[in-house]
Amino acid sequence: MILIADNLTVTNSAVQRALDEKDPEPIRQLVKRCEAAGAEAIDINSGPLVRDAENRMTFLVDTVQGVTNLPLLIDTASPRAIEAALCACRKKAIINGFSLEPAKREAVLPLAKKYDADIIGYLLRPDGHVSSSADERLQIACAVYEACCKAGIERERLILDPIIVPVAWQDGNFQNREVLSVIRRLSDLLGFPVRTVAGLSNLTAAAGPQGEKLLLESAYLCMLAEAGLSMVLMNIFHQETVRAARACRSLMQPGVFAWEEI
Amino acid sequence: MILIADNLTVTNSAVQRALDEKDPEPIRQLVKRCEAAGAEAIDINSGPLVRDAENRMTFLVDTVQGVTNLPLLIDTASPRAIEAALCACRKKAIINGFSLEPAKREAVLPLAKKYDADIIGYLLRPDGHVSSSADERLQIACAVYEACCKAGIERERLILDPIIVPVAWQDGNFQNREVLSVIRRLSDLLGFPVRTVAGLSNLTAAAGPQGEKLLLESAYLCMLAEAGLSMVLMNIFHQETVRAARACRSLMQPGVFAWEEI
Repeated sequence: MILIADNLTVTNSAVQRALDEKDPEPIRQLVKRCEAAGAEAIDINSGPLVRDAENRMTFLVDTVQGVTNLPLLIDTASPRAIEAALCACRKKAIINGFSLEPAKREAVLPLAKKYDADIIGYLLRPDGHVSSSADERLQIACAVYEACCKAGIERERLILDPIIVPVAWQDGNFQNREVLSVIRRLSDLLGFPVRTVAGLSNLTAAAGPQGEKLLLESAYLCMLAEAGLSMVLMNIFHQETVRAARACRSLMQPGVFAWEEI
Repeated sequence: MILIADNLTVTNSAVQRALDEKDPEPIRQLVKRCEAAGAEAIDINSGPLVRDAENRMTFLVDTVQGVTNLPLLIDTASPRAIEAALCACRKKAIINGFSLEPAKREAVLPLAKKYDADIIGYLLRPDGHVSSSADERLQIACAVYEACCKAGIERERLILDPIIVPVAWQDGNFQNREVLSVIRRLSDLLGFPVRTVAGLSNLTAAAGPQGEKLLLESAYLCMLAEAGLSMVLMNIFHQETVRAARACRSLMQPGVFAWEEI
């Protein structure tokens, strides 16, 4: 399970300010801290980027690449910004992501094809809402896969996100167990080893006590790891959760166990 | 998932000494500490009890019952001591346990029938060795279930233990993933909701750094919880692991999530 930092986001006011002021230093420091904390990839969440989208995304990608060689995820709703990022990336990036919403699908899928990029497909309904069950998510997975095939994207490029929901939702526990079931069933359903990703921070979105949030996050991460999740998007500064992830990796690896690997 | 303390064991020298000296106080204190730490049942592991088996077991049961109303597990290889314990228990106890080893099966199963006690069946080979795969454990489960039926024991009395192995074993990780698979498949296989138990302390038996042991224990416990384990036998003084168990319970409960329950 690859650990992707979700910390570089414009919802962090320091990142937003650095972006507004085109000041690379706070972003550099943040990325270095993410890598030191255990990040194995960096999600660049620039938000909708309504103004000056291409330049702002290019600035972000250049700044991040200036201090790390980690793989990058391009996380923006703006197709123009995605393309600018893909042009700026020195290594292959991951587009994060697209759903069956017609506008997103039509704008984003051709970019994955054009730049031969990995792309995350959200298992959301075409209207953008979260689906109600594992079975519905699996139906959506089939449609997402077909959309990729039609766009000429190789199946190995596709990474599916079953969408973790907040525990605070009325059916949050049910949905998050369905997520585990989806992760277990996707490869059998689609007939090849499907890569998966999930956004762990969403689990404890909304108000709640911090200690308990961290506990829930670690516990659910272990369940995700056992279900076979390929990549997790998480707050990499939650060191308890990073340690839990390492313990899972040690327990799940097929070879002989070694204490040194934890 | 019910948390059973495995702390009351003669491998603890203070317990052994208290037992030798028939001094109830150290045992009372230990049991009170277990209950305060979150134990929901107490395993009384008196070892083989070669000398004076009945009196020693009766002393243990009486002492424990004197300070707690928690359910008790009778964990000894001596059939005479098991029977003494079942006679001394005010509430129904759980016999921990029996395997397909002919001597054990023949001596212990009739006691479960006679005292209408719950009984744990170990998914071990008839020669006492750990089986090599999930499929073999499931075959053994069928044989254990049949042995219970033949002994006239109601199926609701049976609790199956798929046998966690130390991570340090050459195939430890493989076996422990098979254990998860067995827990998931038992009810479908036997055709009724099968209760399960597992001994978590065995995971990190053998030498290793304590911090990493606790991490592995918590991570694997979350996997066991998600697989549907009914009861876990554990060191109840490992508060990190107890907290992880509570987080799992909160994530797994079918109703609406509440922070207060963690």
